[in-house]
Amino acid sequence: MQVTKKAIVLLSGGIDSSTTLAITKDLGFSVFALTFNYGQIHHAELQSAKMMARQIGVAQHLIFKLDLANLVSSSLTGDSEIPKMRSMGNILSEIPSTYVPGRNLVFLSIALSWAESIGSYDIFIGANSIDYSGYPDCRPEFIDAFQKCANLATKVGIEGKNVAIHAPLISMSKGEIIKKGVELGIDFSLSHSCYDPDSNGRACGVCDSCTLRKKGFKEAGVKDPTDYFA
Amino acid sequence: MQVTKKAIVLLSGGIDSSTTLAITKDLGFSVFALTFNYGQIHHAELQSAKMMARQIGVAQHLIFKLDLANLVSSSLTGDSEIPKMRSMGNILSEIPSTYVPGRNLVFLSIALSWAESIGSYDIFIGANSIDYSGYPDCRPEFIDAFQKCANLATKVGIEGKNVAIHAPLISMSKGEIIKKGVELGIDFSLSHSCYDPDSNGRACGVCDSCTLRKKGFKEAGVKDPTDYFA
Repeated sequence: MQVTKKAIVLLSGGIDSSTTLAITKDLGFSVFALTFNYGQIHHAELQSAKMMARQIGVAQHLIFKLDLANLVSSSLTGDSEIPKMRSMGNILSEIPSTYVPGRNLVFLSIALSWAESIGSYDIFIGANSIDYSGYPDCRPEFIDAFQKCANLATKVGIEGKNVAIHAPLISMSKGEIIKKGVELGIDFSLSHSCYDPDSNGRACGVCDSCTLRKKGFKEAGVKDPTDYFA
Repeated sequence: MQVTKKAIVLLSGGIDSSTTLAITKDLGFSVFALTFNYGQIHHAELQSAKMMARQIGVAQHLIFKLDLANLVSSSLTGDSEIPKMRSMGNILSEIPSTYVPGRNLVFLSIALSWAESIGSYDIFIGANSIDYSGYPDCRPEFIDAFQKCANLATKVGIEGKNVAIHAPLISMSKGEIIKKGVELGIDFSLSHSCYDPDSNGRACGVCDSCTLRKKGFKEAGVKDPTDYFA
């Protein structure tokens, strides 16, 4: 009898992580989705993550509380203004105030602990180094370094059953990601990208994340289902 | 005016991390101690960490709550029996049930987030690969891999202000560590090593950690101040 392989997927509820979740499922893995409640001010993310996990279908969806806001300084955790109306050139070239120091490293490390505990050797992350906010921890060289580190940190690594860190979107444009997601049946109206939504969770339309989202739907030739308030 | 450099020290309240704290202070750093409340059943650790931080003196001591028990399977978080009365040969050669998957990677990652936020480029960990419980994430090759990963994960790494991960005890025996600690004025009666203390926080004397502790005091020729109940 063939046993279905388990994979951990980091799921924020945005376009990239939702598409990664659908890709992982499409590859035949039994999916364990991991979402972090880390004090992000755009709390609507968590609702989107729940809806996405339900729509795409997972074996388990764990929301892990992590009080990063206690530790770091970032506009995403409420320490300063979210940048708005920036040009695409600036978005792609500067590290903005929305950067949360070491976030993907913390998220992947916790995912690794869970993976080792449930007997999974595959961790998927929706990191993307094309249409992204310039965060250092979204680059392929970081993903490679983490994989090396993961295999030295763990019992499974020592035993030679290597853990693989997959970043299937790393070289895709936002348009290509959206096309892939639609092809896999994702309802993107459930996804959330905005860094600064209103109290009803509606997207601002002008933060870096909304700007990249709009560009992506346009490139993909797919109607943007987002209800922007601005 | 010379500004005192800040360092993060991972502090559990045991012999190794307390000695590391004293070494870091002795090097002239302004010390930010980070302790994890991760669901360890030996909760007496947290009290020891607080007393140690106070005795040695730190700029800040942060206790960070992390619900690892929700995620991992380990006898340290209550999932099985703590091994007792094992021989030194077994202790040093096998990965025991007290192993918490990926623990040091998670701890160092969170330390890195804090470091970057407070402008620190130095993280100290009391990892030791001589008299230790066989955990993979205490080996020098893991520490090196983490440092590489840290510098790819962060803004400071990109800017060329490299973060250094220091493991000053990595090649010391438990006896040498205790001698060093005593030399730096540590009151080891405040430290806690036992994996399975009684309800008053008294050490069992027979778990791997107590066995290594006893061996260390003997080697150092220092009277063991611990009140073992067994």
